Amino acid sequence: MIRALTFDTYGTVVDWRTSVLAELQSLAARKGLTFDRVRFLDEWKAAYRPAMDKVNRGEMPWTTVDAIYRTRLDELLLTHGITRLTSEEIDALARVWWRLRPWPDAVAGIRRLKVRYIVTPLSNASFIGMVELARFAGLPWDCVITAENARCYKPRPEAYRTAISLLGLKPEEVLMVAAHNYDLEAARHERMATAFVPRPLEYGPGQTTDLKAASDWDIVATDLEDLAARLGC
Amino acid sequence: MIRALTFDTYGTVVDWRTSVLAELQSLAARKGLTFDRVRFLDEWKAAYRPAMDKVNRGEMPWTTVDAIYRTRLDELLLTHGITRLTSEEIDALARVWWRLRPWPDAVAGIRRLKVRYIVTPLSNASFIGMVELARFAGLPWDCVITAENARCYKPRPEAYRTAISLLGLKPEEVLMVAAHNYDLEAARHERMATAFVPRPLEYGPGQTTDLKAASDWDIVATDLEDLAARLGC
Repeated sequence: MIRALTFDTYGTVVDWRTSVLAELQSLAARKGLTFDRVRFLDEWKAAYRPAMDKVNRGEMPWTTVDAIYRTRLDELLLTHGITRLTSEEIDALARVWWRLRPWPDAVAGIRRLKVRYIVTPLSNASFIGMVELARFAGLPWDCVITAENARCYKPRPEAYRTAISLLGLKPEEVLMVAAHNYDLEAARHERMATAFVPRPLEYGPGQTTDLKAASDWDIVATDLEDLAARLGC
Repeated sequence: MIRALTFDTYGTVVDWRTSVLAELQSLAARKGLTFDRVRFLDEWKAAYRPAMDKVNRGEMPWTTVDAIYRTRLDELLLTHGITRLTSEEIDALARVWWRLRPWPDAVAGIRRLKVRYIVTPLSNASFIGMVELARFAGLPWDCVITAENARCYKPRPEAYRTAISLLGLKPEEVLMVAAHNYDLEAARHERMATAFVPRPLEYGPGQTTDLKAASDWDIVATDLEDLAARLGC
């Protein structure tokens, strides 16, 4: 019955935290900068949801996460006293969200799933961000679908409906795969099938959220290789 | 300067005519049908442009080419006296446009170009049609962009603008690749770069249109491997 799998990507497919911290570390070493990299990243990432919610409430026009992160980055460089970067270096740092490493099971799992199912991201990323990330991380998607195609963010129903419509399928033929319970809840509300894949280290060792399935999702898998096995791939 | 290549697909990347004729041939043999397959295909394909033009003029709501071809197929089966097909067989025949063989140079050429550039279709196909075609023909796209993303058809400016916007690039950073001069004319009007690749057999041995470049396109290549060579890939 399932024909296509839509994947949340940041956190579910790629390990953004370790990747961004590594880049901040290497930048700090290269430029002789001292700043609290974990706090910097926490504050950077924290800009994400409130800005998306503003777009979803119509309080802000459509804005990509790239632009959201870029605006916040300029502020954070000031508050953390980082003044020694050229504008090219700031541009490159802003695009770190296009250079994130996949979780160890992700590429192999998606590749197995692709043999039988259409596989696509359904991410709050920008379209080009998701394209560049796929090129960087070797994610073998069949296509790319993001919030930008709907011009609003998950968990708004339109984000899921746009994906289902572009895929030309019935909602129940599309399986939403995510490490975040809120995402699956919204997908189920649209009558999509749901698969939870916990990523207990997404936010680092102290993570307290999304450690396990918060509902009776159709599938609960340990990782994307396990998901492939459960779907007979 | 070029960062991404957008490809017309029907005709430019895949040989729809030979592929559809082969499927009509095999269906005729299997079902013991006698009908003029070339005329059938010519009449089927001829439905494409007028219906798209109606959508573009606002005389018809957004309709995918899959639906356009499906409506026309039902009519043609009647006028050609083909009454022995089950509804499953008609569905499968309608989806022949998802099972088209690439020109011999296409997969290798796109693969070479992909090393340096983002490669995506920019086709009047449905989104799912282009996804399924890529899976069938092994087209190694980075993403899929079609008229369905703009909800209007090439050569309407919005089709090109939607692709440029999703790719987050300037028009001149995107190279439109097509075997059809009208497509490149519209792309150039949007300030995209242009590459012509002649496909003199697209419409069969008697083809009279698009045999050569009708303008001073930025690149004229003999095929997609030649295009890769000209772009230093």
